[in-house]
Amino acid sequence: LKNVTIGVFDSGLGGLTVLKELLLKLPLHNYIYLGDTARLPYGSKSPDTIKRYLDQSIVFLKSKNVDAIVVACNSASSVIQNDINYGLPIFGVIDPSAKVAVENSFNERVAIIATRTTVKQKSYVKSIQKLNPLISIYQQACPLLVPLVEEGLIDDPITNLILYRYINPLLQVKPDCLILGCTHYPLLLNPIRKVVGNELLIISSAESVIKDVEKNFPTPKLSNQDKIKTPQIYMTDESYMFENIYKTLFPEKEVPAVEIVNFL
Amino acid sequence: LKNVTIGVFDSGLGGLTVLKELLLKLPLHNYIYLGDTARLPYGSKSPDTIKRYLDQSIVFLKSKNVDAIVVACNSASSVIQNDINYGLPIFGVIDPSAKVAVENSFNERVAIIATRTTVKQKSYVKSIQKLNPLISIYQQACPLLVPLVEEGLIDDPITNLILYRYINPLLQVKPDCLILGCTHYPLLLNPIRKVVGNELLIISSAESVIKDVEKNFPTPKLSNQDKIKTPQIYMTDESYMFENIYKTLFPEKEVPAVEIVNFL
Repeated sequence: LKNVTIGVFDSGLGGLTVLKELLLKLPLHNYIYLGDTARLPYGSKSPDTIKRYLDQSIVFLKSKNVDAIVVACNSASSVIQNDINYGLPIFGVIDPSAKVAVENSFNERVAIIATRTTVKQKSYVKSIQKLNPLISIYQQACPLLVPLVEEGLIDDPITNLILYRYINPLLQVKPDCLILGCTHYPLLLNPIRKVVGNELLIISSAESVIKDVEKNFPTPKLSNQDKIKTPQIYMTDESYMFENIYKTLFPEKEVPAVEIVNFL
Repeated sequence: LKNVTIGVFDSGLGGLTVLKELLLKLPLHNYIYLGDTARLPYGSKSPDTIKRYLDQSIVFLKSKNVDAIVVACNSASSVIQNDINYGLPIFGVIDPSAKVAVENSFNERVAIIATRTTVKQKSYVKSIQKLNPLISIYQQACPLLVPLVEEGLIDDPITNLILYRYINPLLQVKPDCLILGCTHYPLLLNPIRKVVGNELLIISSAESVIKDVEKNFPTPKLSNQDKIKTPQIYMTDESYMFENIYKTLFPEKEVPAVEIVNFL
């Protein structure tokens, strides 16, 4: 049991849903968040471009002396290369969610919503079929959800309409669970629940990745939630939605200062 | 009258609406298009970041020996600095549209839809009030329109709904005209017409900037449209929507090859 410093990286603000789970479940570690808001969104960009952006972000976080990095972005997680030695542990969000899905897929049917790049890369398909090749996987790219979240349209009829259009065809195959394959999507959990009903298991990468981190960096549980440390926040550009989204996630915490960095 | 090479720069594909007007109205020039698809969209990024991206793009286009650059992106046009010598003529899209609006504003009320950055920078407000300080200007930021266009949802009830929500409040002030303050928006002309009706003058930056270019680089009119040259297209990342949008704009032309460049 020892406290370490963990870097949390995302293309923008979606990774804050992962940071929230980390702060709640492993609160004694220190956290440094980096959002690449100057180049977001990643979900419609090519794997080569995302790979370049990820490498630059790892270099930046290493310069801040982190002990490990959580890549809290599905598009970026899908380009992590297992055969490369990054010089420190890198945790992606795809494999942990895939594992939870496989463990809960009793009829061998898994549905996934994700960005266009994650769908096209078949990241979840590969990860799930490595664990159980018999599982049928139904993917839906949802390119409008990230802009809706980044605009704060979380409780809005337009969002409901768009979610219904994306998700309803997936429900027709009667999946065992639905993977939220983008770290922005947990912010839409309520409207997504409206579309899928209360029965379907929803798997959020924010929750799944925690177990991986905990296994490698166990810490004592914290008794007093008030003692949660304030994370250090870096962004590559100003983000007018940061305060809004941070308050949605941490209604009782003070909004930390954001330091703008330009490592390009 | 002499033929020159003109660079056309945009954050992504929206600038193709400007390229189309240039090819139709000044077809004897050569055109080199650069879309910064690796970092789009610009409309939600800060002026400092956009300024850095614009500078890099100008350096790239100069290396291709262009004689002038049309900045076919409102967010990037709003950070062009008049006191800097870029070493070649730079045409932005804001002042030309502002001029057309002032000339047509008989009741001194102008409405503008644009990205969040363009609205926040007050680029049109400043440009219009320099020409006529008595004009009242009503701006509406429309951050979801670029993702809708980039996703090809041009003829879609969701787009109609979102347009109605953005534009209807502007109509209450009975403006003389509506400036489309983003080069993506001309692709939404039909659904915008449905919201505003047939009477309102719609000003597109694509059409307005041509006059500025023509004044500086006059060319003979072309009699045979078939002879329109194929533009050279560079993008900073693959773009799965390029073919689709190019065909919408140029239904009878062959889709040119796209060269991916990485000047970052």
